[in-house]
Amino acid sequence: MSVPKGFRDIEPDVARVRYKVIDELRRNYELFGFNPLETPAIEYWETLSGKYGEEAESKLIWRFVDPFSNREYALRYDLTVPLARYVASHPELPLPFKRYQIGLVWRHEEPQRMRYREFMQADADIVGSPYVEADAEVVNVTLKGLWSVGLSDAYVRINHRKLIYHVFEKELQIDNPLPILRIVDKLDKIGPSGVESELLRVGMNESTVRRIMELIQIRGRWGEAEEQLRKVVSQGGVEVINELAELFSLITSSDRSSMFDLSMVRGLDYYTGPIFEFNVESTVAPSVGGGGRYDGLIGLLSKKMDLPATGASIGVDRVVDILVREKQAVNAYREVKVYVIYLKQELYKHAWEIAMFLRNKGIRAEIDLMRRSEAKQRKNALSSGATHLLFVGEKEIATSMYTLYEVSSGQRITAGLEDIAKHVQSA
Amino acid sequence: MSVPKGFRDIEPDVARVRYKVIDELRRNYELFGFNPLETPAIEYWETLSGKYGEEAESKLIWRFVDPFSNREYALRYDLTVPLARYVASHPELPLPFKRYQIGLVWRHEEPQRMRYREFMQADADIVGSPYVEADAEVVNVTLKGLWSVGLSDAYVRINHRKLIYHVFEKELQIDNPLPILRIVDKLDKIGPSGVESELLRVGMNESTVRRIMELIQIRGRWGEAEEQLRKVVSQGGVEVINELAELFSLITSSDRSSMFDLSMVRGLDYYTGPIFEFNVESTVAPSVGGGGRYDGLIGLLSKKMDLPATGASIGVDRVVDILVREKQAVNAYREVKVYVIYLKQELYKHAWEIAMFLRNKGIRAEIDLMRRSEAKQRKNALSSGATHLLFVGEKEIATSMYTLYEVSSGQRITAGLEDIAKHVQSA
Repeated sequence: MSVPKGFRDIEPDVARVRYKVIDELRRNYELFGFNPLETPAIEYWETLSGKYGEEAESKLIWRFVDPFSNREYALRYDLTVPLARYVASHPELPLPFKRYQIGLVWRHEEPQRMRYREFMQADADIVGSPYVEADAEVVNVTLKGLWSVGLSDAYVRINHRKLIYHVFEKELQIDNPLPILRIVDKLDKIGPSGVESELLRVGMNESTVRRIMELIQIRGRWGEAEEQLRKVVSQGGVEVINELAELFSLITSSDRSSMFDLSMVRGLDYYTGPIFEFNVESTVAPSVGGGGRYDGLIGLLSKKMDLPATGASIGVDRVVDILVREKQAVNAYREVKVYVIYLKQELYKHAWEIAMFLRNKGIRAEIDLMRRSEAKQRKNALSSGATHLLFVGEKEIATSMYTLYEVSSGQRITAGLEDIAKHVQSA
Repeated sequence: MSVPKGFRDIEPDVARVRYKVIDELRRNYELFGFNPLETPAIEYWETLSGKYGEEAESKLIWRFVDPFSNREYALRYDLTVPLARYVASHPELPLPFKRYQIGLVWRHEEPQRMRYREFMQADADIVGSPYVEADAEVVNVTLKGLWSVGLSDAYVRINHRKLIYHVFEKELQIDNPLPILRIVDKLDKIGPSGVESELLRVGMNESTVRRIMELIQIRGRWGEAEEQLRKVVSQGGVEVINELAELFSLITSSDRSSMFDLSMVRGLDYYTGPIFEFNVESTVAPSVGGGGRYDGLIGLLSKKMDLPATGASIGVDRVVDILVREKQAVNAYREVKVYVIYLKQELYKHAWEIAMFLRNKGIRAEIDLMRRSEAKQRKNALSSGATHLLFVGEKEIATSMYTLYEVSSGQRITAGLEDIAKHVQSA
């Protein structure tokens, strides 16, 4: 019997890193005044249907018929649509509603694509504000979150759906820009020449392709990008450029950590305004987060509650992968652990109470549960990552003086239990 | 579009209590040397099938056929069978394997029974030790966990499957004791007279019923219960009484916080040894946790790995409910929040930077995202739970002296930003 294909068990060292990341993100969301909300893993199929675009709808959502009720359900595909469902059914909410949620989502990926079918996301969203202040707050809280978990080289790339439509539909007069945008989105993967040849292959004329290649290379620091945009984008695009300028002016240390990128389009159907993608400089890994403004989504769920909204999501498990693979996070999270060793079986209860004493002092302590010999206890202690061994023999009990052995240094100290606890706490 | 029937959204105040409970339980499990493991929400149906007894198997497990692969899956029903599946497929694990897991489980309860279909459990299990030391450690870590989250009156009731079988099968010679045990298990709900009349109704003879009624009233502190048991239980039951005596001797402050209860039988099929149920004195709520030894379960998943195991589970959402309803936990978790108010729209960016300054100091800070007037900002600040208001006007910016208003006391102070931060941090 094995774990289902495409799923995985997360083992202790990695699980601890994941917990630290969750803790730090939560702390950070709270600092910005976001409130936690938890929605269930399961939604009615109708709630998710029609929100994510054709590929997700037909292939990627875990949908199923409940055999007991014949009702159709789905596992949540992201945390955004459940939020929209929550807001749409709570007209009494004071606005803006700022919430964060950290939880699992499920996607029916083909396992051979090296993507997991279950992974964790951390989302911050603001419902009710149509202003760029809200977009900027979402970007800032996400950037700060990534920095605070240890990805100090995380940065954001920003584009705007309205600018994309303006450029591709109005200026280049492409009726259905979606297939073109999908090609453009591959710029980082296949490079400019790859994009160019794909655009030609789908039958675009050369002068339009040349124009597209010029435009999508407008990427980089906002100051320079803005200058170029104001030169090449026609009158109708000025308003959205002004909006982007305002947005960039509110982003924390915008020069080093934020970029404009006209080639970044993001897949999800529901975005309507600024869109964001979060990357990490030092790694070749794909993005660690993304988001954007989605002013129409809540209206899809309740016409009466058609509210503007914006948000960004962090791929928690991607962050954890980077921390474990590239930042040696696992070792950093190891802590003190005292293994209490009894020299004779009759002394067990005494050793048991010493372990409890240490735990009551906030010190991790373990004791053998297998009635093993002293030698085997030592062996188990070392293989289970104990940092200290504490020996309990008849002499120790008689004198109330115990010997503590520090594994890394080989150093021994002999002292009363209170002093031993203090020594370990300061280790 | 609503939340699915039997499911619920957990709103901010309650979500924060749940987070605190999870944090505290994790800290406590780590103190005892348990390691975190995360298994997926989804298992193959075959993994869960045949483990939980007839009612769960036929009605309570969320099972479904994946329409893409036609494979049959199930949402996890508890955290124990996934652990057994993990251990059965990892023969390399050093023993004992002590793990904790805190996660959601799903049960197909009828919504009208006031039970949720999704709830959180926190489990500690020890795999590989056949000794009562392991059972005692599981009981202790669970009791300590309940105490540390604020349920200082939590206690454990203990019984032993082998004692139950000995008494009901060997001594009372009941061939199939299961329906009888189900009636006995209702003692707390329907009282002794209720149990007695139900037993008579299913056709038991009067002398056996009288004997059962005598036996199941053996409950209370171990010292007294032991004496009674040794009197009434025949020779074949002595060994298990000795085992229970050893177990009770290892439980933390066993007198006040642990009880023997021969009427407590617990439902799950897989238990084979000591069984535990955790309750809270001050509340009428049902148990907040339970567990026991399940030596045969891992062998069901891999014959080669037939390992002894024991564990206990805390109903996290039941704990949260008690904390919120009876212990006023919500208020206790409210924290400082500064709302930065700008007196004119032109001063917005300045106010924005002050909010960021406070967050960098670890202080929760909010700012309006709706371009509201000063009066409306104040109103929003109060309704969103701000504890302090900080005003940003032209004079403040010119002099670098700001006024901080404390909502609860009405007190005002005027100072530089560093001093204001210090003042708030010490609030």
